[in-house]
Amino acid sequence: MSGSGLFISFEGIDGSGKSTQARLLAEHLRERGRDVVLTREPGGSAGAEEIRRLVLEGDKDRWSPETELLLFTAARRDHLERVILPAIAAGQVVICDRFADSTRMYQGLGRADLRGMVDQLHELMIGREPDVTVLIDIAPDVGLGRALSRGGGEERFESFGEGLQARMRDGFLALAKEFAARFVVIDGGRGMEAVAGDVAHAVEARLP
Amino acid sequence: MSGSGLFISFEGIDGSGKSTQARLLAEHLRERGRDVVLTREPGGSAGAEEIRRLVLEGDKDRWSPETELLLFTAARRDHLERVILPAIAAGQVVICDRFADSTRMYQGLGRADLRGMVDQLHELMIGREPDVTVLIDIAPDVGLGRALSRGGGEERFESFGEGLQARMRDGFLALAKEFAARFVVIDGGRGMEAVAGDVAHAVEARLP
Repeated sequence: MSGSGLFISFEGIDGSGKSTQARLLAEHLRERGRDVVLTREPGGSAGAEEIRRLVLEGDKDRWSPETELLLFTAARRDHLERVILPAIAAGQVVICDRFADSTRMYQGLGRADLRGMVDQLHELMIGREPDVTVLIDIAPDVGLGRALSRGGGEERFESFGEGLQARMRDGFLALAKEFAARFVVIDGGRGMEAVAGDVAHAVEARLP
Repeated sequence: MSGSGLFISFEGIDGSGKSTQARLLAEHLRERGRDVVLTREPGGSAGAEEIRRLVLEGDKDRWSPETELLLFTAARRDHLERVILPAIAAGQVVICDRFADSTRMYQGLGRADLRGMVDQLHELMIGREPDVTVLIDIAPDVGLGRALSRGGGEERFESFGEGLQARMRDGFLALAKEFAARFVVIDGGRGMEAVAGDVAHAVEARLP
């Protein structure tokens, strides 16, 4: 961990409630007197939000998976340099809705051969993992139901169906094993407040 | 060389006349019955032109050198996939005004430590060099005079002054030594037609 702050990411399939839980954790820590930066990816800085728009607008095959990966990595580099690292250095707690694990998952979903490229690019141009990654784990049918009922939003990522949701869940759980030291897996299939309590408990144990 | 076409890049400092020479070579080869695609970087495909605008518009320190490098690499990947490789595969001659050597030069100018990152990123995400690179070599004071009298254009790259022009010229000549097998160095300090004659002669010797 560099600096005196803490870098927490939230991951999970669409409809898992991770964005809500990220917000609830931010509120909880602020109530306890912590200085918190709540941010998200893709995006999170002025430049990264522009790159996000470039990637997510337009046709589905506008960019190849490799070009999309480069654009998301450019956005992440900007976000990291301009928002995340300065906040950590200032002793703040950074809570980020999605980080590099989402790239490992989503870019690799249709193209398993891309995972090696994703890892090498991350190592070369990002080189930083969260201190803690909270995975909100949820059954695929529950997640898909929530995501569809919410509507709108990141349609490119949510127009997949239950089979793909199940593969994504398995993929996130595999990442949790691969990076066991920083991952905390929370059962998201319960009431919002019960989940939030578990998240707060897990994070507080790791606060510097 | 993949496919049956040929991939030619033009490099040189601002005001060297490389864009003019690229166009004259395209005209010359078309007159000889060759199917030619004349393109440029940064840009050269619809997506890459959008990324180019994102990079070149706005404040000078809008992007860090590393983020800018990622954005240019995303643009190059798109340009390569959508324009250059399909044309080569179709047997066409691709003439590109600037390619990866410009990135090696410009990104590394202010930050010599970036050259390793530039090379690794190129290896990982681009992995292709031109078959022939024509370096239009010119004295820095001549190049700067031409660039300034032309006005407008890529001001971020042209607001450097003669000292930096000299360093860039030396940098390109060093690249010509490093990649001697594909580089052709042409003396650009003569009349346009004399230069064009030398370029045509050098390229014709390498046509498949």
